[in-house]
Amino acid sequence: MYLRFALLKTNPLKATHKQQLNKIRMKKTVNKVSKFRMQLMLVALILPLAVIGQEVGSMERLISPEIADDNTVTFRIKAPKAEKVILSGNWMPMVPNDGMGMTRETVELTKGENDVWSTTVGPLEPELYGYTFVVDGVNTLDTANLMVARDGTFRTENVLYIPGEASELYWAKTGPKGTVHQIWYESPTLDQTRRMYVYTPPGYADSNENYPVLYLLHGGGGDEEAWPTLGVANHILDNLINSGKAEPMIVVMTNGNPTQASALTVSPKLEPSTQPAGGMANMMFEKSLVNDVIPYIESHFQVEANKENRALTGLSMGGLQTMNTSFENPELFDYIGVMSMGFADLSRFGIEVDHSKRGKQIEALKAADPELYWIACGTDDFLYQSVVDMRNELDKHDFDYTYRESTGGHTWSNWRIYLSEFAPMLFK
Amino acid sequence: MYLRFALLKTNPLKATHKQQLNKIRMKKTVNKVSKFRMQLMLVALILPLAVIGQEVGSMERLISPEIADDNTVTFRIKAPKAEKVILSGNWMPMVPNDGMGMTRETVELTKGENDVWSTTVGPLEPELYGYTFVVDGVNTLDTANLMVARDGTFRTENVLYIPGEASELYWAKTGPKGTVHQIWYESPTLDQTRRMYVYTPPGYADSNENYPVLYLLHGGGGDEEAWPTLGVANHILDNLINSGKAEPMIVVMTNGNPTQASALTVSPKLEPSTQPAGGMANMMFEKSLVNDVIPYIESHFQVEANKENRALTGLSMGGLQTMNTSFENPELFDYIGVMSMGFADLSRFGIEVDHSKRGKQIEALKAADPELYWIACGTDDFLYQSVVDMRNELDKHDFDYTYRESTGGHTWSNWRIYLSEFAPMLFK
Repeated sequence: MYLRFALLKTNPLKATHKQQLNKIRMKKTVNKVSKFRMQLMLVALILPLAVIGQEVGSMERLISPEIADDNTVTFRIKAPKAEKVILSGNWMPMVPNDGMGMTRETVELTKGENDVWSTTVGPLEPELYGYTFVVDGVNTLDTANLMVARDGTFRTENVLYIPGEASELYWAKTGPKGTVHQIWYESPTLDQTRRMYVYTPPGYADSNENYPVLYLLHGGGGDEEAWPTLGVANHILDNLINSGKAEPMIVVMTNGNPTQASALTVSPKLEPSTQPAGGMANMMFEKSLVNDVIPYIESHFQVEANKENRALTGLSMGGLQTMNTSFENPELFDYIGVMSMGFADLSRFGIEVDHSKRGKQIEALKAADPELYWIACGTDDFLYQSVVDMRNELDKHDFDYTYRESTGGHTWSNWRIYLSEFAPMLFK
Repeated sequence: MYLRFALLKTNPLKATHKQQLNKIRMKKTVNKVSKFRMQLMLVALILPLAVIGQEVGSMERLISPEIADDNTVTFRIKAPKAEKVILSGNWMPMVPNDGMGMTRETVELTKGENDVWSTTVGPLEPELYGYTFVVDGVNTLDTANLMVARDGTFRTENVLYIPGEASELYWAKTGPKGTVHQIWYESPTLDQTRRMYVYTPPGYADSNENYPVLYLLHGGGGDEEAWPTLGVANHILDNLINSGKAEPMIVVMTNGNPTQASALTVSPKLEPSTQPAGGMANMMFEKSLVNDVIPYIESHFQVEANKENRALTGLSMGGLQTMNTSFENPELFDYIGVMSMGFADLSRFGIEVDHSKRGKQIEALKAADPELYWIACGTDDFLYQSVVDMRNELDKHDFDYTYRESTGGHTWSNWRIYLSEFAPMLFK
C-alpha cells in the first residue's frame, strides 16, 4: 500500500505504468518516517544519486488513487486521529440538500491498518475527474497524487485520469506534438501587457505554410490557464490532428477578464488595469480580442488572415463573449461556437436587452453567412433555458445554426467533449 | 476574515492587491455554506454574470496567507474537530530529531472563532516560500491560497511570496516579457519524443537577431517544469534583461531524467523509454543534450551557434550533468556553472571514479579555456564537502574557476539566487 519514494524511480522500461504499480505494490514496505540517511542509502543503491537534487522531504508515499483493471479506483489517506474522512469527486451526482440548493454526494472512507483510511469506488467511466478529501470537515488534497489542477479562482483539486476510449484524446500520446507558447502581448485597449497561451500544431515549426486560427475562450472565474490545464486543449488538438480528424490549426487561449493582465497566480504585483470594472457587461474584452489579440496573432504567427480561416468559441462567460464578438463583427469569423450559454434574461440584474438591436445583429450575422454557428449545451446545465430562449430567437430570424445537446451540466467534462467535436468541423 | 468569492472579483482599479485585501477584510461577511441560488444572486448583483462559467463550488474563502505591511504573515484554516494544527514552512530552521536525521521546525496554530485556527509568523524576509498545514497528522494544503507548486516528485506545496528587494526578480513586473514555449522534440539518443521548456527573451519575436543560449538543468526528482515554476527562471530573466543586468538570451530547460519523456503529470500513458535504467550514471541524458537538444535549438531558434554563445548550468543532479557534459565536450560551452554539486565520493555506491580519466578531462577543459567556470554552494548543503573536494582537485590542476559560497543549503532559494547571479555574467 505504501511505496517508498525510491521505487517510484525504478526504470519503467518495458512496463506500463499500471504494471509497474502492480510490481511495486507487491513489495510491501513498512511505514517508517525519518531516518533520512538510511533511506538515502537505499535510494542511492537503486538509482545512484538520483535522489540528490531537490530539497529533501518525506521519502514514502501512499499509493492513491489506485486504478484497477476494471476501472474501480481505491483512494487512500493517512489520518491518525480523524473521526470521519470523506471523498468528494466530481463524478458523483448532485442531490438536493436541506437548504435551497444542490450538494454533491460524497463517499465515506473507512479506517484500516496503520491509520490509513480508504475506499474503493466505481468502476468509473473513462474521463478526467477532479476530487478532494474532507477530513473532519477540512478540505484536503491527496498528497499521494502529484496531479493537481486549479479550477480558476474556485478551487485546487486532485486530478484523476481514467483511461479508455472516451478519454483517449486528453493525454499526450506517442506522435508529433504541438507547441504551447506563454506569450505576453500589448493590449492598448485594456492598457495592459497581458498573457495568453498559443498552441501551434505539430509540424508548425518546420513549415512555411499559413494556418487557420481558433480563438478559444474560458468561463467566468477562469483565466488563460483554464483551457491548457483543465481543458487539455493542446492534447485534444494534437490527437485530433494526428489522427486526421481535425485540420492543423493554431489555437489562441486568452484571459477573458478585462481587469486581469494574467492569471492571479502569476504575479501579485502586476499593475491592475486602468479600465472600468465590469468584466462581462462592458464589452472591453471583446474589443481587445478584435483590436489587440487578433492583430498580434496575425502579425506574429504563420496565419491565413481571413474570415474563412478564423474560428471563435467559448464556454459560459466565454460563450457570451463569443456571441458578443461575432454579433458586433459579423464578417470576422466563419466558424462560431457557443458552449453552455444562451440569451440569458438579465433584467433582474438591471441589464435590459435591446431586442431591436439584437434582432439587427442576428440579421447582420445571417447576411454574413458564417460556415458554422454551433450551439452546445447539457440538459442539466443551469443555463439550459437561456439556450432554449436563444434558439427560439434565432429561429424567429430563420438563422441557420447547428444545435448539439449533451447530457450533463456546466462542466469541464462537457467542454472538453464540445472542443473535441467542434474542432473537427473547422476549416474544411 | 472571510471573503465571499464574489468580492474577490471586484475591480482592482487603482488599488494595490494589498489595499484591496484590506478593503475586503473590512466587509465582514458571515460563514454560511450552500444556498447557492441566493449567493449567485449576490454575486450577480456585484458583477453581472461573472460567476457563471465554471463548475460551481463553495462561494466563500478564508483569507490565508495574509501578509501585513511589516511582512508578518497570518495563516488560517478552518478545522472544526482538530486537536492540533501545525504549519510547516520552508523558512523555518531544521533541527535534529530523535532519530538520526533533521526535521523542520513547525509552528502550532491556535483555535479561534468559527473553528478557524490561525497563527501569525515573521516578519519574513522577502522570498518565495513553500508551506503546508498538518491537521492532526494529515498533510493539508491551504485551500484559501490558489498558489500551489509541485516540487518534482517530492511534494505539492502552497507558495507564499513576500515582496521586497531580495525577491523583486521573481515575479512578472510591468515591462516587456519573454515567451515560454512548451516544446516536444525528437530524441533519437533516448528513443523518445520529449518535452522541454524554452524561454525566448523580450523582443525575440520581433527581432531578426541571433541570440546566445543558456542550457539550464534541474535536480534529481525534478523535471522540465522545475525551473519555470519553482525556479521562476522566466521572471528572473525578464527582470534581469529589462534592467540591463543580463544580455538577452534564450534559456532551455530540459527534462534531465533519461527514462522520462516529460513530467509524469503530463501523461500517464506516454511510452516509457527503451533506454536502460540509471538516470545519472549512464550519461544518456548528457549525450541527448549534446546530440538532440542543442541541434534542435540551433536549427529552430534564432541562435548564435558557437562556443562563445553557449552556457550550461544545473543544480545538484543537473550540476553533475553540467560537469559531465562540459568535461566530455570541452569545446562546446564558454560559460559553465555548477550549483550545489561537487566531486562526490560515490565508491560506497559501487561507482568508482577513474581519477586518471578525470585528470585528463580537467586538463582538456583547461586547454579549451572557457570564459567562466563557476561553482556555487551553500555552507549548509549536504554536498558541501563534495564541493570542497572538487575545488581541491581543480586546484591541483591550476584550473581557473570562480567560487561562490552562500549561506543556506540545498534549496530552491539558493538556486534562484545562483541563477540571478550567473545569468548576468554570461555573453559579455
